[in-house]
Amino acid sequence: MANPTAAMLVIGDEILSGRTRDANMHYLAGQLTDAGIDLKEVRVVSDDPNAIIAATQSLSKTYAHVFTSGGIGPTHDDITADCIAAAFDTSIAVRADARALLQAHYDRQGMELNNARLRMARIPDGALLIDNPVSVAPGFQIRNVYVMAGVPSVFQAMVASVLPSLKGGAPLVSTSTRIERGEGDIAGPLADLANSYPDLSFGSYPYIKNGVYGSNIVIRGADRAAVEDATRELTALFIEVVK
Amino acid sequence: MANPTAAMLVIGDEILSGRTRDANMHYLAGQLTDAGIDLKEVRVVSDDPNAIIAATQSLSKTYAHVFTSGGIGPTHDDITADCIAAAFDTSIAVRADARALLQAHYDRQGMELNNARLRMARIPDGALLIDNPVSVAPGFQIRNVYVMAGVPSVFQAMVASVLPSLKGGAPLVSTSTRIERGEGDIAGPLADLANSYPDLSFGSYPYIKNGVYGSNIVIRGADRAAVEDATRELTALFIEVVK
Repeated sequence: MANPTAAMLVIGDEILSGRTRDANMHYLAGQLTDAGIDLKEVRVVSDDPNAIIAATQSLSKTYAHVFTSGGIGPTHDDITADCIAAAFDTSIAVRADARALLQAHYDRQGMELNNARLRMARIPDGALLIDNPVSVAPGFQIRNVYVMAGVPSVFQAMVASVLPSLKGGAPLVSTSTRIERGEGDIAGPLADLANSYPDLSFGSYPYIKNGVYGSNIVIRGADRAAVEDATRELTALFIEVVK
Repeated sequence: MANPTAAMLVIGDEILSGRTRDANMHYLAGQLTDAGIDLKEVRVVSDDPNAIIAATQSLSKTYAHVFTSGGIGPTHDDITADCIAAAFDTSIAVRADARALLQAHYDRQGMELNNARLRMARIPDGALLIDNPVSVAPGFQIRNVYVMAGVPSVFQAMVASVLPSLKGGAPLVSTSTRIERGEGDIAGPLADLANSYPDLSFGSYPYIKNGVYGSNIVIRGADRAAVEDATRELTALFIEVVK
């Protein structure tokens, strides 16, 4: 049986102007090859509704799966979600499930879910959310199109969220735990914990916020109970610094 | 007046499989931005004739300029030239001018212009050759499509060959001089020479061949006499090692 086919749609003026070097194409290409899915075409288009809509329709008709990156953030030029909805003639609005995810996230951080951030909860009617364990704001799947973020760490986390179901495997569950400590302090205990759970994957996504070093630790696996056990152990290790 | 528009077509299974990371898109994007040309779309397609032909026709109709990279080497899967000819319903064959360039190059190197290498002289009828000062085998322009190599150093040299005419400037002339000495030995005298010709550009493209270090030194400029003077001085500097 031939492998399923796929295309990628990269959205963003910053790539076409040369300001930013795309890193997601090479990553996705390798992941799909490993998964036995043939990436047949990539298109890079600008932040132009007509270009995004036309490319989405064309690629969605031609290939089994379409993966997009970019244009789902909080700013005025993040128009991907609306364009994908238009491509499939579907309505789009702030959706309660996506809003709840963002609300809980910003509440934890003591930040306001303002109108700009609320844009990230705009989801086309009938779409499935794609888990974003790094920065919470979800991607989504509608028909055969997987709409994901352009920031490489978030893109990669979303690819990890969707690939198992494409391969026919069990979907992964994940937790994300924010630890306000530099990675140099986290690395040793985290490696020990990872060694004691060989069936789970452990990722560290460092950040600096208001001058404070921290990292989001993402634990993933097919076994929900194991993921939850490992997350409890992680929290206990860094009890004094977990928010 | 709006800037002219452009698209890029990257051809190669090796990019889509993740084996190779494309480096040409980011380079071209920066060069076109500097030249005041708006790169509006990039497509990456596999080594599949129908995909190459369809993308060439579509992009050529939509944008003022189309730049391709990849698929013009000597191996059986280098099918770009034939596909571009097919896209424009033009005949293609080994052309005398391209053959002469290759013949002279391989004669200098004491190598045979075999049938595989001769494939690189297949040029669509009516196309203009694009100068390749790095490795000689030319690119070509047909209608608004510029067909260039995928190897980044050659791609970059070909972009430098075509950009001045797109910007309405004088076309550049260039010479290439092979010096069988490591770049560490070449760098000092070459920098002095470059300083004495501020209107010319000097590029060094190193290689290792049969264990011997060397470099192709490319001198470019709009003033043919100055380029030739500088090339004579370069040759005199390294008289004992120039072949």
